[in-house]
Order: sequence, then structure tokens, then C-alpha cells
Amino acid sequence: MAMAEKIKGKAVVGQSGGPTMVINQSLVGVVEEARKHPEITGILGARHGVRGIVEGNFLDFGTINQATLDAVAVTPSSALGSSRDKPDAEYCKRIFDNFKKNDVRYFFYIGGNDSADTARIVNDLAKDNKYDLHAFHVPKTIDNDLRVTDHCPGYGSAAKFVASAFMGDDQDNRALPGVKINVVMGRHAGFLTAASVLARTRAGEGPHLIYVPEVDFIEDKFLADVDAIMKKGGRCMIAVSEGVHDAQGNAITAKVASSSERDAHGNIQLSGTGALGDYLSGIIKAKLGVKRVRADTFGYLQRSFAGIYSKVDAAEARMVGRKAVEYSTQGISGCSVVMTRTGNGPKYGVEYSHTDIKNVARETKSLPREFINAEGNNILDSYKDYVLPLVDTLPTIGYLF
Amino acid sequence: MAMAEKIKGKAVVGQSGGPTMVINQSLVGVVEEARKHPEITGILGARHGVRGIVEGNFLDFGTINQATLDAVAVTPSSALGSSRDKPDAEYCKRIFDNFKKNDVRYFFYIGGNDSADTARIVNDLAKDNKYDLHAFHVPKTIDNDLRVTDHCPGYGSAAKFVASAFMGDDQDNRALPGVKINVVMGRHAGFLTAASVLARTRAGEGPHLIYVPEVDFIEDKFLADVDAIMKKGGRCMIAVSEGVHDAQGNAITAKVASSSERDAHGNIQLSGTGALGDYLSGIIKAKLGVKRVRADTFGYLQRSFAGIYSKVDAAEARMVGRKAVEYSTQGISGCSVVMTRTGNGPKYGVEYSHTDIKNVARETKSLPREFINAEGNNILDSYKDYVLPLVDTLPTIGYLF
Repeated sequence: MAMAEKIKGKAVVGQSGGPTMVINQSLVGVVEEARKHPEITGILGARHGVRGIVEGNFLDFGTINQATLDAVAVTPSSALGSSRDKPDAEYCKRIFDNFKKNDVRYFFYIGGNDSADTARIVNDLAKDNKYDLHAFHVPKTIDNDLRVTDHCPGYGSAAKFVASAFMGDDQDNRALPGVKINVVMGRHAGFLTAASVLARTRAGEGPHLIYVPEVDFIEDKFLADVDAIMKKGGRCMIAVSEGVHDAQGNAITAKVASSSERDAHGNIQLSGTGALGDYLSGIIKAKLGVKRVRADTFGYLQRSFAGIYSKVDAAEARMVGRKAVEYSTQGISGCSVVMTRTGNGPKYGVEYSHTDIKNVARETKSLPREFINAEGNNILDSYKDYVLPLVDTLPTIGYLF
Repeated sequence: MAMAEKIKGKAVVGQSGGPTMVINQSLVGVVEEARKHPEITGILGARHGVRGIVEGNFLDFGTINQATLDAVAVTPSSALGSSRDKPDAEYCKRIFDNFKKNDVRYFFYIGGNDSADTARIVNDLAKDNKYDLHAFHVPKTIDNDLRVTDHCPGYGSAAKFVASAFMGDDQDNRALPGVKINVVMGRHAGFLTAASVLARTRAGEGPHLIYVPEVDFIEDKFLADVDAIMKKGGRCMIAVSEGVHDAQGNAITAKVASSSERDAHGNIQLSGTGALGDYLSGIIKAKLGVKRVRADTFGYLQRSFAGIYSKVDAAEARMVGRKAVEYSTQGISGCSVVMTRTGNGPKYGVEYSHTDIKNVARETKSLPREFINAEGNNILDSYKDYVLPLVDTLPTIGYLF
């Protein structure tokens, strides 16, 4: 991080990558805090992330009143529009050129590790050109895979959705027994799939099996796992990360989906298709002879459902936006906002700080092995201690039996 | 309906068919009301519907306290377990024999039109055998396709889920434009898919196209519809009933799913697979050349999600359970509980009554044509007047543009 003199100029704020239930909280946090600082002479919202910057497609937040901000804050998805563009050096040069042209001195980019990398490159370009710019990364991702920070804004709300879905669906599976597979988002990190463990409100209930990308997914082992659970209790509720892969690292979805679409980051499309769930259903029916097998893929609902969010997550998402502005106006740049957990359970709380953006950019974090059972097919109850404070409240489940 | 003398004996209550968010409200309504009537000497819960009756698998509600009932009432899915069995004459005879053996004089069966038919046959058997039995059908279905009643308990909560999902997902589609297809439950009736219209909170927003089973689904027309919307606004949000079929009446899913599983009613499996959405995605990519096309299938979440329900729906579901007991203890049998809307909008309310079960059994109701646009690819805003009071509240959406 570089310390610099306070300097007057405009701020640009943008949203990037997959939306979340609370990414607009961070946006509103940036705007509200920026309005308090006279050195920020105007706030421009980049429409569709970096693409809006290079195309000069901005929303002037000077035209947006507080009532609209309040409504946008509780609306899921990225109100400015998002982008999947992965800027290379030349693209970042165009971003920087636009900033210079428009006298932009503050840049707040809300996103995951790729967005952090973009902010890092632009910040470095400014330094090389001796142009005073305060570029800040504002963390968000339902994947919860950013480094340094204890957890990521967006994760708690998505985890709440996943847990609530499993809580209800496990009752559905009890009522009409069989095998039920639910595919949860998560390409490389199993945090979101692991949150399904919150639905296991008493011993013996589902999810009975949980598969995350941190462990190789071996089909024969999977079938043996399902068979054992079915023989024991006559029903089986399964959580599977969309990113599960074989021992060679090949995503199962890539093997079974008809589409082989790749995004700008070279990643094969995993979401927005039911192929993985249908494939796993098929092999269970064919090889285990189970009659009732169903698969659902939670898809975009888990990141953009209207009306479900964690209040804790929403408040933290707002605060990381505010903190990015606060730190920037203190002369800090080239950093990402960090949350450190100061207590857990009823004493849950976080402290905010910042870290050099290079500690967050590009690389990701995996679900620690200590939360996965030895066999690699379940999540331990100890994970609940980590995730429960982040989801705020959960529904309760009543049982007659 | 037959009027009979009050008679002392046990009550059996069961739940059937697909679970809903509020079917346990009806169960608790039956139990709470039954406890008030001295002529009901005991309350037995049939585990897994009619199957529990013929197998003598009962829960004695005498062992269940009020705190458990309160917890179960707000829990989604069928707490007694459900069944997909479709009893024939011989099966109904076994139900009746069990009732005689156990001195069962009251039978409350919570379910859809098939369950109504089961209650009807058992009621007729009792009459033929001059055995005093008060069989009552308690309506529930997220499909909203029961006759006579204005709407069905379970529908409002599922409609709330579908509307909330579309509200959020339409924001997701605005942020990352492309074609998004969401497949909604509904084999023959489009009521639930039609509820997606509630998400269109201002002109031009999604869903832009809504396909229900009441209109033939013609692929070329579908592709032309999507193409036109994409050319106009660069994005397209689509709602499709899982039951859409071609001009010959063949379900599209049946043509494209690898599974051809049929249930006891001879219906092909439509839910618990992403096949229809993936197929429609595929033809849009292939024939329209749209790059970003995604499909999600809401699946079991829309009937069993924990924590989302309409308070209006929950209260009505509780009341239809109560009313069935109340009418039965007045000597009425062989009926189904009916709701009649007494006012709409802010004056929304219902009156409860009953109708001969044969008016509800077997047959279903379709979404009235007046709510579908002339072209057959959308739902008119007038449908909002019908469905909005049933979903209680909805999230609000804020826009920056």
C-alpha cells in the first residue's frame, strides 16, 4: 500500500463478477461515505464494471437521491450492472487513460479476486505514471474464497439461502423418500456447499452426504456412499458443489454437459445448467436401482433471490464499502478491505482493516480440510460455528417423529 | 353430501401428494380443532398417507404437545410423510376395513384432486356398508388447480417463492445480460408459472415471456419470440411451465429427458431434472446464436423452502383444516372445504364453505384464458389482481436506471 497526500477529484465505483444479495449494500456504502468527503468532487458509477469505464458509460450519483439508494441497498444483484471482462494490461491502460481524462482520483471496485487484480494493475499503472490515484478493492463473493479476510460479504446471505433450501428440502425428502441431489455453486471452493450442514438440525437428518471441490470426486465411491445411506435409512439427501472433479482435476460437469462454453477467464460454464445433477441422478438409477432419484440445481437463486439475506452480511457489506472510502481519503491506496473476527457465537463481531491488494488479487482460499470429515464425503458440525454467525437467523424445523 | 348423526369415534388425518410450505398448517388446524370436540375420541396421524392407513402405521397425536404442533405448523413439507400411491377400489377397501377395525369415524385427507378422489371412494364405501364415517377432503396444492374453491392453500406461498425468485433473477439478468430461462412447476395448470408476472415491477423488465401449459408450445414460435425480445432490449427473462407441450399434447420434457420414469398416476416425471431448461438453452444457442444463455429449474425449492411463506396462505391453510373438522362434527361428510373470495385488493377476504367431494375429485382447473395474452406467450398484468393478495407481501426492488 502507498501513502499519498489527500487530493481532490472524482470517484469511480463499479461492480464486477457474479452478483450477490448484498453487493448493492457495498455500492451504497461507498456512495454514502464518499458524499461526506469534500475531496471527492463527484461520484460516477461505472455501468457494467470495467466495460463502463473504457466506454465512458457512467451514472452520475449526483442525480440519485437517498430514497433510491435505500431501495437499491436491499435489492439483490448489481444495480450498476456487472461484467465478466478480464482486463489485460492494454485494457487496464484504457481504464487508466479514462481516469486521467476525467480527473478520477478514487476508484472503488467491488468484486472477487479477479476484480482485485484489475484494481491492482490500475493502481500500479497510476504509480508508474506518477498520477495520484487511490484504487481500492471492496471484497464480495458468495464463494467466500478471498484471502486474508475472515469471510466475504455476500457469503452469509448465500449460505442462508442454501441452508434454508436444504432445511425445507430435507423435509420434502423425509415425506417422499428417495435420493435427492442438490447442486450448489462453487467452482474451486466448497464454502457455500458446506453451508448445507446448517440444515442438519438433528442427528440422522440430511444432508447425509456433502461433496466439495477440495476432495476428488470418485464416482464409484460416491455410489457406494449413497448405497450405504439408502440401506441404513431409506433416504439420502446430498449436497454437491458444481465444481466437483475427478482425480485428474477434470470437472464432472465438463464431462457430461453438452455445452462447453468458456468465459473470459477460461473457465468452463458450470452454472445455469442441470447437467451435473441429471448425470448423477442417472448413474444412481442405473447402478443402484433406486427408483425415486431427483436432482435440483440451485443456480442463480442462491446469489440473487429477492427477500432473503443475512442482516449481519448486509451490514458488513455496507461497512466494507464505507471503509474503502474512509481509508482512501486517509491517503491509503492499492488495498483491499479486510474483516477480522473478534469473537464468535453470541460474541460474534468483526474489526475492519486493509491489506495490500496483492495479497488478495488472483489467488483464492479453499475450505480448510479440518472442516471436512476424514472420508471426504461430509462436513463436520464444527463448521457450523464458523458459518452460523454469518447467516444471522435460520428458520426452525418442527418434527412429529 | 350426506347428513348424519353425530357419532363418537377416532379421527384419522393424512397428507398426500407433493408437499407445500403450509400443508402442516392444515394438519395442525385439523388436530387443534379435533381436540375441541368430545365426539372425536382420539386423533391418529397416518404416516405416508393412505399407505400408513393400510399398513396400520399411525402416530397418536395424544402424545404430541402444543409446542411441537406450533413448530410443525411453520415447517414446510408434510410432517406425517406423504404418498404418491393412487388407491384403486381394492386399496380403498383396505382403508375402509382398517377404519372399521379401529373404530375410525372421522377421516381428513389433505391433498389435491387425487386425494379428494380417494376420500370420495372411501366415503362411498362407508355409505354402501352403512358405516357412519365422516370423510372430508382438505384442499392443498401449489398448482392451484382444484375446482370450486377460489384458490388452493399452498399456492400463495409457492407463488411468493416464484415471484421473489424472478424479482431477484431479473436483476441478475440486467447485471449480466443474456437469455435466462426459469422452469416452474405445473404439469397441466399454469397458475404457478403465471405468478412470475408479479416480478415485472415496471414496464420493460422481466419476465419478458411466460409460457404455460394452457397454450401449445411451438418451438419455432418460441425462438422467434426470444429473438424479438433480444433484438429489442439485449436481454430476455423467460418463465416456462415444466408441463409445456407441443400441438399434439406431448410434453417437451418427455421428448428431451433421458429418464422416462412414470408415477403411479401414469404421469411422466417432470420435476427433479434440468432437462427441459437445458434443452431450451441449447436450441437458443444453436439457432439464435446467443452466447450467454442460462437455465434454472426451481424444482423442489418452490414447494418446500424453509422460511418463505405467505402469512395469508398459512392462515387459510390452518383454517381449511379447522373447518373440515367443524363441518364433520356438524354431521357433514363426503365434502371438500371451499374458499370464496369476498373482496379483493385491500378488502381481500374469504368465506369458508363446503362442496360435495365429487365436484373436486379427479378433475382439475386451468388458468383462465383471459389472463394469457392473445399471442399466448405472456401473462397479463390483470393476473396480479388475482394473485397478489394470496402472496401477502413481496420484496421491493430499487433501480438506479
